[in-house]
Amino acid sequence: VKVTPLSGFPEFLPAQRVVEREVIASLSDTFELHGFANIETRVVEQLDRLAKGGEVDKEIYVLRRLHATDDDATGDKQLGLHFDLTVPFARYVLEHAGHLEFPFRRYQIQPAWRGERPQEGRYRQFNQADVDIVGRDVLPFHHDVEVMRVMVDALDALPIPPVSFQFNNRKLIQGFYRGLGVPDVTAAIRTIDKLDKLPENLVADLLVSDAGATPEQAARCLELATIRVPDTSFVAQVQALGVTDDLLDEGLAELAAVVEGCAAGGHDSVTVEANLRIARGLDYYTGTVVEIFMAGYERLKSVGGGGRYDALASDGKTTYPGVGVSFGVSRALVPLVAEGVLNGSRSVPSAVLVSVADEQSRPEADAVARALRSRGIPCEVAPSAAKFGKQIRHADRRGIPYVWFATTDPDGATTHEVKDIRSGNQVPADPAAWEPPAEDLRPTIIGFEARP
Amino acid sequence: VKVTPLSGFPEFLPAQRVVEREVIASLSDTFELHGFANIETRVVEQLDRLAKGGEVDKEIYVLRRLHATDDDATGDKQLGLHFDLTVPFARYVLEHAGHLEFPFRRYQIQPAWRGERPQEGRYRQFNQADVDIVGRDVLPFHHDVEVMRVMVDALDALPIPPVSFQFNNRKLIQGFYRGLGVPDVTAAIRTIDKLDKLPENLVADLLVSDAGATPEQAARCLELATIRVPDTSFVAQVQALGVTDDLLDEGLAELAAVVEGCAAGGHDSVTVEANLRIARGLDYYTGTVVEIFMAGYERLKSVGGGGRYDALASDGKTTYPGVGVSFGVSRALVPLVAEGVLNGSRSVPSAVLVSVADEQSRPEADAVARALRSRGIPCEVAPSAAKFGKQIRHADRRGIPYVWFATTDPDGATTHEVKDIRSGNQVPADPAAWEPPAEDLRPTIIGFEARP
Repeated sequence: VKVTPLSGFPEFLPAQRVVEREVIASLSDTFELHGFANIETRVVEQLDRLAKGGEVDKEIYVLRRLHATDDDATGDKQLGLHFDLTVPFARYVLEHAGHLEFPFRRYQIQPAWRGERPQEGRYRQFNQADVDIVGRDVLPFHHDVEVMRVMVDALDALPIPPVSFQFNNRKLIQGFYRGLGVPDVTAAIRTIDKLDKLPENLVADLLVSDAGATPEQAARCLELATIRVPDTSFVAQVQALGVTDDLLDEGLAELAAVVEGCAAGGHDSVTVEANLRIARGLDYYTGTVVEIFMAGYERLKSVGGGGRYDALASDGKTTYPGVGVSFGVSRALVPLVAEGVLNGSRSVPSAVLVSVADEQSRPEADAVARALRSRGIPCEVAPSAAKFGKQIRHADRRGIPYVWFATTDPDGATTHEVKDIRSGNQVPADPAAWEPPAEDLRPTIIGFEARP
Repeated sequence: VKVTPLSGFPEFLPAQRVVEREVIASLSDTFELHGFANIETRVVEQLDRLAKGGEVDKEIYVLRRLHATDDDATGDKQLGLHFDLTVPFARYVLEHAGHLEFPFRRYQIQPAWRGERPQEGRYRQFNQADVDIVGRDVLPFHHDVEVMRVMVDALDALPIPPVSFQFNNRKLIQGFYRGLGVPDVTAAIRTIDKLDKLPENLVADLLVSDAGATPEQAARCLELATIRVPDTSFVAQVQALGVTDDLLDEGLAELAAVVEGCAAGGHDSVTVEANLRIARGLDYYTGTVVEIFMAGYERLKSVGGGGRYDALASDGKTTYPGVGVSFGVSRALVPLVAEGVLNGSRSVPSAVLVSVADEQSRPEADAVARALRSRGIPCEVAPSAAKFGKQIRHADRRGIPYVWFATTDPDGATTHEVKDIRSGNQVPADPAAWEPPAEDLRPTIIGFEARP
């Protein structure tokens, strides 16, 4: 009978849920100010679309009906829960292409599922927020700058610790390695991506053994990976390494444009860097790549990431290039909430508890509540006509700031008063006119003040 | 390569999704005005909590990892996707009881999953909106009236066809059958619940064969079931049938209070009835029951329902009585959207497309967009410096009402103008001051005008 939590499936208490809702509302606001349309995809995809032979395959949750005797009869294909929002988005674009306008700019905030071993920041069900722009056949580069700047604006508006956007560009790395003469460029990228897990000398050895580089080439690859600056000075630093290649030049120009575009605009809690060791292992990135880190929470690894992919989807005839970036809502928020860094200001939406003097007068209390609600003031009526002290404690335990009292004298005249239970201040009030201060109207996020 | 829809998993196009989002936002607003806190539960429950031997069991989707070799090692229990929001809510209450304040008033808007044969209004993944109030050990009856009235207010505010709340009370039926002397009251309730599928004479026969009623008793049960009125006149009608029973009296008083409480308040598109054939087959209801129907869409059966359950959850020591009601968001909206009765006014949030005269002037267009966004006006910048006619068509195809033009003359002076592409009207405008009319600021729901 005892109910214990399910590891990897975190759940928020009502006040904690305020944090998640406000964060999602704020992200949505920013995305919409930039003209991104919201979509939701179904949570299941056909298994052959999810499982592509990669590392993530073994973490896919596959569905079957409990008594699946008629699966064959109804022609069901095997279904799995999506493990990110990119695979379902690519399928959505292909399925609905005839009804979409391109470039198609969408955001999507939904859970995804991975059956991995739970740890801090890694959950089996987690919410994620993705923004992407996808073109039909072509997608001009300026959309790379645009979509990254949208996420910079979005995270800058959140009441979370400062975040750092660390950008690189696959053309830059590929062109550099190619210009350097490294035999297996793809293997070299995959190897350099291990720099956050392995020491430099070991990565150098692997570049030689796995990518066919000479020790001298391996040293130059590592030199490139040490470049990390908050502006476009990386261009001169890379050029000083003396490698020439057309693709390298293109990558340098693109990365400079992204860094410049994202650094502009006076953000309070976002920093932007070119960090030339960011590679992102996934094969499908072809240009801009980014990883996002949260100050003080580097142990979570990145709280977001993304990049440019020249073939998000393809139906054989048409190819859909895309660029996008994802923010791990659960990955960032669950630890912040668990540590009490963030919490909701109260556990209920109510700004007012309308007290009940006795059960006979409940209709009058209901009428007060209706009057307040008609002017957009969330409120609730006390569940029982307990002593007023108990009703005030009822409000206090939920964080409701105001308690309303209506007292009727023997002549039938009713006096209305409202008490701010934080100050104890009680004043006459008219149900048809009284308003709480704007900051008390709705629950808000409390806790994180450390803006720079 | 061709992607075909997955039967039973409907997905909305971006403009259609506007309808669903606005409906969910409106429901949330009403629930919060009444002080209900939002929660989200994880989508999975342990299978032994979901499968209780009922009809729904065979529709449960069970999860397993694709390569589940280490399931035993990590001690995983079998997990399934929830098929409603009541089972997870009951589990949430038990799991978090120590951190919740009772009576606990929550709403929850999430998908649920059932592997049933797809048909109109019945989907394998569907969104649902639930409001419930749950007490610890006790829950006064007035909460029945409260929670039903909240849903009446919530649906009255939606731009959907009129809905009808049809109330009954299990105490009323049980007391009537008991007072009448029907041997098996439970079987009789289950039988009367079939009146919407079977003809009356067959139901009468079943009352005799399955519930042990005499033909005379069966006739009286059917007589009770024919009573359907929009006010409390059912009380006198039932009393005229000459059955006396304490539980019957209690049920009559409760049903009268619910009908009166929900009918009050001047709703535009909600009607309220006492309909004494509503039984709701589910065993756990113990008092108020309700089913909700949508005018013109009776073929969908109910689009919502709920009631009172004296034991929503129990941990052996403490029992949690509850009362709640659910609205089938997908069940109601998917047919309305598919038929084109409802649609979004545009497929993107943008109120303005900022045109681009040539790629060199893209930064100036970005600056105009920033100025508009800083004042809360959603906008996007044209993806290419195509001919203005083509840029206007770009806006038109997405339903964006305004196109912004900035032209710089040879002396470097810039003129700003904004065109309402519906009227063709083009006027000078200041990026730091111009505002669209409020009704153009955000996408809205269009289509349903037929309010009574």
